Amino acid sequence: MKKLINDPLKVADELLEGLVEAYDGECEKVGTRSIVKKDIPAGKVALLVGGGSGHEPIYHGLVGTNLADGAACGDIFAAPPPDIVLEATKAVERGKGVLYLYGNYAGDVMNFDIGAELAEEEGIEVRTVLIWDDVCSAPHDQKDKRRGIAGLVPIVKMVGAASQTAGSLDELEAAAKKAVLHTRSVGVSMSPGSIPATGKPTFEIDEGLIGLGMGIHGEPGVSEIPMTTADELTPRMLDLVFDDFAADPEIGALGEGDEVLLFVNSLGSTTMMECLICLRRVKRYLGERGVVVHDTIVGPLVTCQEMAGLSFSITKLDDELKGYWEPPCESVCYTKL
Amino acid sequence: MKKLINDPLKVADELLEGLVEAYDGECEKVGTRSIVKKDIPAGKVALLVGGGSGHEPIYHGLVGTNLADGAACGDIFAAPPPDIVLEATKAVERGKGVLYLYGNYAGDVMNFDIGAELAEEEGIEVRTVLIWDDVCSAPHDQKDKRRGIAGLVPIVKMVGAASQTAGSLDELEAAAKKAVLHTRSVGVSMSPGSIPATGKPTFEIDEGLIGLGMGIHGEPGVSEIPMTTADELTPRMLDLVFDDFAADPEIGALGEGDEVLLFVNSLGSTTMMECLICLRRVKRYLGERGVVVHDTIVGPLVTCQEMAGLSFSITKLDDELKGYWEPPCESVCYTKL
Repeated sequence: MKKLINDPLKVADELLEGLVEAYDGECEKVGTRSIVKKDIPAGKVALLVGGGSGHEPIYHGLVGTNLADGAACGDIFAAPPPDIVLEATKAVERGKGVLYLYGNYAGDVMNFDIGAELAEEEGIEVRTVLIWDDVCSAPHDQKDKRRGIAGLVPIVKMVGAASQTAGSLDELEAAAKKAVLHTRSVGVSMSPGSIPATGKPTFEIDEGLIGLGMGIHGEPGVSEIPMTTADELTPRMLDLVFDDFAADPEIGALGEGDEVLLFVNSLGSTTMMECLICLRRVKRYLGERGVVVHDTIVGPLVTCQEMAGLSFSITKLDDELKGYWEPPCESVCYTKL
Repeated sequence: MKKLINDPLKVADELLEGLVEAYDGECEKVGTRSIVKKDIPAGKVALLVGGGSGHEPIYHGLVGTNLADGAACGDIFAAPPPDIVLEATKAVERGKGVLYLYGNYAGDVMNFDIGAELAEEEGIEVRTVLIWDDVCSAPHDQKDKRRGIAGLVPIVKMVGAASQTAGSLDELEAAAKKAVLHTRSVGVSMSPGSIPATGKPTFEIDEGLIGLGMGIHGEPGVSEIPMTTADELTPRMLDLVFDDFAADPEIGALGEGDEVLLFVNSLGSTTMMECLICLRRVKRYLGERGVVVHDTIVGPLVTCQEMAGLSFSITKLDDELKGYWEPPCESVCYTKL
């Protein structure tokens, strides 16, 4: 893979510089490697996201209007170090505390937790809500072991909107927990991305196979299955999501009349053509079950370099979540009217 | 390349079905293979875009609010046949005529022209403005030989907004000609996409080379150069655009105080990471010349399957074009607040 970069060890820093430029003045770089909105109002409960670089346009592309106030950015595929988390925390806080909202990966949890301790020492109250939408990474009764994948896009949108009016950190934490609980994803992969510093593939998978339930870095999922068609694979993936809603007493089955957000995400080199062909089959599957799509997102928003694969994320809406979804948002990663 | 499709000969039809679904009820499929907005007001001068499929999210993803009223969609990498152009034309027209706005490719010109004749026979007035932003495809005094590439995104945005208030087809045609005249692009490619029906690469290029000025299907550009860094390649590409503005008496040099739209487009598998690293260098180049970026677009919007490469498009703004840029737009391809 020929990549258009400069020093392979500086890609995370250089892409962040470019990301700040892409915001045309709305955001700025803070400290070592964070990106923060310029216009966070006094007295706002702050929302901080973050994670490893290399997955652009997330995570740091989700800073923006009705989205996150800032992002702490790690090196490629690496959690942001605690000092970066602290710098970002101090930059976004406006006296009402800071909610950390990020994907459940061990390195991120460790570093954000240390960052939170450092922030608390400086008198900043912090709460953490982990994103664990990947239903293939652990059973529903072990959600603490589930990974966060593409569901973070609708989740950050909803929590970002909620943060505009949240009166307290308690209130925002509750909204975030609800957005996470209501969002479930399933992914597949056909081929790996490559690590910018080495050119090596992020994982290996046989040419004739699909990794069903595989994570965004190639983490193992449910099984490896023979390459198949969009129409055969799509319902098989959706069954995993529907079964998970149905089996989980905390949320309950999706069925007739339920309204959902639908997000079809490409992991990188899987084309919009393929995403749209699968989307067509997703809509038929949902229609057959009486599930109504309130809004659809489609595109390569949660990527792993040039990895091939896609995921489906479904958020079960209620009036509260619909209210958080409604306001427009704008960022480099995702914009809606 | 393992592609997640069904029948390789039906991808254009199936992706259009998915695209209509992605619009959540705002657009509908019309006739054989067109997509049209549902709420085109009576008396509006209509804007029709179109071209081959396989480049998603363009062209058909540019139908939407303050964008095109409809798109005539061809098969993969093929112009829409005249009957599809006619069907789309009849579906978008509201009594004030229809402007065709599309990329300058021989097949598209032939078929849209026949479509226009058929429409005129049915009493619908049609005008055509071709998009020819690729400065590497012919000298500035042979613009009729230039190809249309990624510049179509800002162009369709501006003309789409102009079409909301245009009093006549003459007026919209003039706005479109101006948007095209003011927009110039340069592209590079590092590796081909593949043809969905055959799996064959769309072109060949040596592993160690970059196609400088190469078109979005692999059409020849300026030269093949050795693979290099983002920081070395970026100014070399931008020089071609700046030289073109300067050499063209119809528009004139870009310089101190000029305001521009900037679009960094990925052709498919080139990552957002790479686009952002290049964007950082683009902004420095523009800054050194006193050129001010009014707004930045970045992402894989004009693609050719999993082709690797990117392009820079620059629109030289004046008050009229800035006015067309300002209103929000929403579509599957591009949304701004």
